[in-house]
Amino acid sequence: MTVKKYNHKQINKIVQYILKSNGLSEEDVRTVSNSLIAADLRGVNSHGILRLPIYVKRIKNGKIKFNPEIRHIKETNATLVLDGDHGLGQVVSQKAVNELIEKASNSNIAAVTVRNSNHYGAAAYWSSQLANENMIGLSVSNVEPLMPPPGGAAARVGNNPISFTIPAGEKPPIVLDMATSVVPLGKILNAQSKNESIPEGWAVNSNGNPTTDPNEVVNGGSLFPVGGPKGYGLSIVIDVLSALLSNGAVGEEIHSMYQEIDKHNNISHFFLGIKIEAFMEIAKFKTLVDQYIDYIKLTPLAQNTKEIYLPGEIEHLNYLSNQERGITVPDNLIAELIDLAKEFGLEQSLIEEYTKPQDELVK
Amino acid sequence: MTVKKYNHKQINKIVQYILKSNGLSEEDVRTVSNSLIAADLRGVNSHGILRLPIYVKRIKNGKIKFNPEIRHIKETNATLVLDGDHGLGQVVSQKAVNELIEKASNSNIAAVTVRNSNHYGAAAYWSSQLANENMIGLSVSNVEPLMPPPGGAAARVGNNPISFTIPAGEKPPIVLDMATSVVPLGKILNAQSKNESIPEGWAVNSNGNPTTDPNEVVNGGSLFPVGGPKGYGLSIVIDVLSALLSNGAVGEEIHSMYQEIDKHNNISHFFLGIKIEAFMEIAKFKTLVDQYIDYIKLTPLAQNTKEIYLPGEIEHLNYLSNQERGITVPDNLIAELIDLAKEFGLEQSLIEEYTKPQDELVK
Repeated sequence: MTVKKYNHKQINKIVQYILKSNGLSEEDVRTVSNSLIAADLRGVNSHGILRLPIYVKRIKNGKIKFNPEIRHIKETNATLVLDGDHGLGQVVSQKAVNELIEKASNSNIAAVTVRNSNHYGAAAYWSSQLANENMIGLSVSNVEPLMPPPGGAAARVGNNPISFTIPAGEKPPIVLDMATSVVPLGKILNAQSKNESIPEGWAVNSNGNPTTDPNEVVNGGSLFPVGGPKGYGLSIVIDVLSALLSNGAVGEEIHSMYQEIDKHNNISHFFLGIKIEAFMEIAKFKTLVDQYIDYIKLTPLAQNTKEIYLPGEIEHLNYLSNQERGITVPDNLIAELIDLAKEFGLEQSLIEEYTKPQDELVK
Repeated sequence: MTVKKYNHKQINKIVQYILKSNGLSEEDVRTVSNSLIAADLRGVNSHGILRLPIYVKRIKNGKIKFNPEIRHIKETNATLVLDGDHGLGQVVSQKAVNELIEKASNSNIAAVTVRNSNHYGAAAYWSSQLANENMIGLSVSNVEPLMPPPGGAAARVGNNPISFTIPAGEKPPIVLDMATSVVPLGKILNAQSKNESIPEGWAVNSNGNPTTDPNEVVNGGSLFPVGGPKGYGLSIVIDVLSALLSNGAVGEEIHSMYQEIDKHNNISHFFLGIKIEAFMEIAKFKTLVDQYIDYIKLTPLAQNTKEIYLPGEIEHLNYLSNQERGITVPDNLIAELIDLAKEFGLEQSLIEEYTKPQDELVK
């Protein structure tokens, strides 16, 4: 199989054209497109431009607002509750993170909780902005129910993502970005499409029993929380921080972005920033983080291991490499982007310019 | 096998006598003994009075200071770095949590990081004190290396515990308290003592390869992080929050409480408090939490399941039941307590009064 690689700046142009044609302001266009392209650069394609077609579909039917009126519901010097008014998750989250940086700069620690939002891309995109400001950043979001409580036969909590980013000195930052399920839903769908079974421990069927049949998972089953009660418990905490603190939606009030296209998504986010200078000189902290990274990297290797990686390090290496070599975009997604660009009247010569592969890899 | 149950108030008296005899102030005696007894009441015996003999051993050899000079290293209105001066973890943590409650009450969010401390009992004991003050409480601690990074053949990070407590209204609070390994070391030691094998996925041997032989784990092997890179990543974040932010010890600078008796333990903690009133009226929040708990509790049941539990709910039920029926204490631990009490001169009639079983269960 060959995989085509595309220049990320060119692809960004067609993404921006499509977003702009959907009524987004210049600033919001940049916010959304940069978040998607950043995920593709990091090799996290599941949270990259793959999501653009569903965003556009939802903007068209009004379930995502292209010009939301984001409201301050309650505010102190260190805290803020935002109502995202069903704007794009990135537009709402960028506003939240900007406010958070301002507040944490003054108050040393601050948090913003956000209701009535949408898919915000990769959780790490937001925690990393906080790290760029010399903070330890936390970013979490709830999603629709995808996992049962231990002993349950129906999904009740999302596989809610959690991301921490910790700034380093000479080294890349430490970036944890994980879902609270053993595997994401995409891996189940992938096995289903290939007619393969899945390993035990990934998911349960509609009776809440373990299954190795991906069809049983898709038809009323659900994902297994990582570590059973541990992943379940973390997801509950994320529901509370994002949706209860903001008086947003939980459980069945959250609607699947893909399967419930005629309803608002209604997800919530929570962001926390911890200003490092309040605890220690930032230069000293960064030196300590670098030393800690060295300590981990120098772990003796198990058989068949070539290198030990810190959380987020592989994505950082992808980022550096993909800036040169291009991002991976499947043919069907390129076709969708071209269709959308045509629909919104982008001229053919520019479509060709933006979607010209720069490399082809045998995979 | 029979298991004896003891009145927790009587056992607390002998625990307090022993602590007092070791030079602790009245206040510190109460802090430490209450934290241990609370764990036993919640059925978390691994973090209860089982730990008292090693505390005493370490106080005797000076590696735990019974009268630490806990110092403020750096402080703002919302943040504090403490040096625990190698005091008992509970003494240091109570000071930290008291300061945190004061700060978060004024600043809406606050955090305290602590270096040079010792085993602090159950992580949830501290997050729950914050919840009692109408805050969302976070409590984490690092411990000595017990888990390898993915692909590593040696332990580099602890199975660092993390606890969140969320206050509810009519319902008991939601209390997550988890280690970042698949199972605690105690389960490996237990299998070893019974000459049983352990399930695959619990631990690795000294080459970093999966093993089912507990002897291989104890002899240079290590625990497997829950969810592989997920548990590993969470442990790294906990190292950073507790030990890097406080300029405390990580990795080999941390010494096993049991195996390196002649060295300071050197662990670090981190506590965060989020004042709920800053986001929402507390009564409203508690109603939302109660409704959320109902929603989870009403999940359809899988086969062989009788009830769905929230994080911490089983421990809460234990707490209520054990207050009446007594806490479980193994015979050898009772014998140790009696020996210690005798050593410090407690008269025989009181020893007998404090250690009289109130119930005997066939298990």
